[in-house]
Amino acid sequence: MATYKSIIAYDGTAFQGFQRQAGDRRTVQGVFEQALRALSWQGRSITAAGRTDAGVHARGQVVAFELAWRHAPQQLTQALNANLPPDVAVWWTAEAALKFHPRFDAVRRRYRYTLITAPVRHPLRERYAWRIWPEPVVTAMECIAGQLIGRHDFASFGRAPIPGGETVRNVFQAAWISDEGSLWFEIEADAFLYHMVRKLVAAMVKVGLRSIEPQDVLGYLKNPEARWEGNIAPACGLCLEDVIYPEWSSAMIAQGNVV
Amino acid sequence: MATYKSIIAYDGTAFQGFQRQAGDRRTVQGVFEQALRALSWQGRSITAAGRTDAGVHARGQVVAFELAWRHAPQQLTQALNANLPPDVAVWWTAEAALKFHPRFDAVRRRYRYTLITAPVRHPLRERYAWRIWPEPVVTAMECIAGQLIGRHDFASFGRAPIPGGETVRNVFQAAWISDEGSLWFEIEADAFLYHMVRKLVAAMVKVGLRSIEPQDVLGYLKNPEARWEGNIAPACGLCLEDVIYPEWSSAMIAQGNVV
Repeated sequence: MATYKSIIAYDGTAFQGFQRQAGDRRTVQGVFEQALRALSWQGRSITAAGRTDAGVHARGQVVAFELAWRHAPQQLTQALNANLPPDVAVWWTAEAALKFHPRFDAVRRRYRYTLITAPVRHPLRERYAWRIWPEPVVTAMECIAGQLIGRHDFASFGRAPIPGGETVRNVFQAAWISDEGSLWFEIEADAFLYHMVRKLVAAMVKVGLRSIEPQDVLGYLKNPEARWEGNIAPACGLCLEDVIYPEWSSAMIAQGNVV
Repeated sequence: MATYKSIIAYDGTAFQGFQRQAGDRRTVQGVFEQALRALSWQGRSITAAGRTDAGVHARGQVVAFELAWRHAPQQLTQALNANLPPDVAVWWTAEAALKFHPRFDAVRRRYRYTLITAPVRHPLRERYAWRIWPEPVVTAMECIAGQLIGRHDFASFGRAPIPGGETVRNVFQAAWISDEGSLWFEIEADAFLYHMVRKLVAAMVKVGLRSIEPQDVLGYLKNPEARWEGNIAPACGLCLEDVIYPEWSSAMIAQGNVV
């Protein structure tokens, strides 16, 4: 019996989120554990770096589990893939320290939120992006992104994983990047509140569309008692890109192995 | 009553091809005609530039239909979109000459076939690309692409739309292009045989993977009596990009309006 860590990618469209739930809701954890059971896994639960919401995608999710496996980790990747549906794949597996925990050991996470700006629906891109129109004023959005960097109480934009938990987070990187008709927001922080990225994106888009002022958004940051009652950006635009550990990160390994 | 032309885009994954069929198979033509009927259309059939196969996508398909419509063409685009499912969208509509026919009037078509090269499945990209592994030798594939340009009898790689029909086609552009982990084949010709792009791609990939020689593929081009009995590249990688008319093209208009 050894502890293994895997990097997994999934198209979140047809999942009710990562975390296994009561009833017959389809979850990433559920199908992953089912694939493990086909390899005689008898554990109770895998652990994961982030519990992504329903519809959110991932390219760099990290999971861990204990398993009695006689072959190389690479064969375990293949065996798992053979038992997983087309919308989930394992990209890499390695033996981990016995006490490795994908969430508690992670020091940072990076998410990307993708927008497309177009006056009409775009069937080939809206599976992985939020379409907005008209064209937003990106400089206004960039200005707020820059203000997010640092240590802030984000209570206005999300709730702690446990009721009454800490809502202060350290944001290391936050920027809007554009390329060939796509516009995306990259944010890296030590951890995130529930719905935090999607609420921040919705707020910045509102500023970009000139329906609120930059100061309104910055006001919420300075006053965590206030609650962002505006909309939340749709799940389909969000992707968990990278989970960062002291000595490695999932995107770093995936880039060398897959993309 | 006037004739209208529309540029439409679709994700072909959940369609049994473009062309309406007997029974309850879901087709792009079927859902488009249903959307038109919601606008009191009583025609028998729309016409289209290309009858894409099951699973093939389009960004630049052109359709035409007659309709009694009192408002501007832009409102027709909106009304159609309101009646179409998420995997089909109208990008642009204009009044057309009474006798306009999207297929007979088109002088060229352009398709793109997208590959990704990765050792394991990629759930976020395989909806729109064919994954191959190992890494192919792209220079060998480029060499064949260059040889496709010109006037050739492509009978080995596809069949004419009508039995016994002409199988000579004029290829104006054919090239492999790579960018950030994607590799795609662009081909522009006056017209295409049934399955032609997907069989050519399959043959070039076989050369890239060194399982056949470039001369083998070029042999088929010189001897149209021979039949390519190898595989056919999966439909998901193929997209109808552009339909070109003497004075306009669908991609040209879409670029200005949508992407």
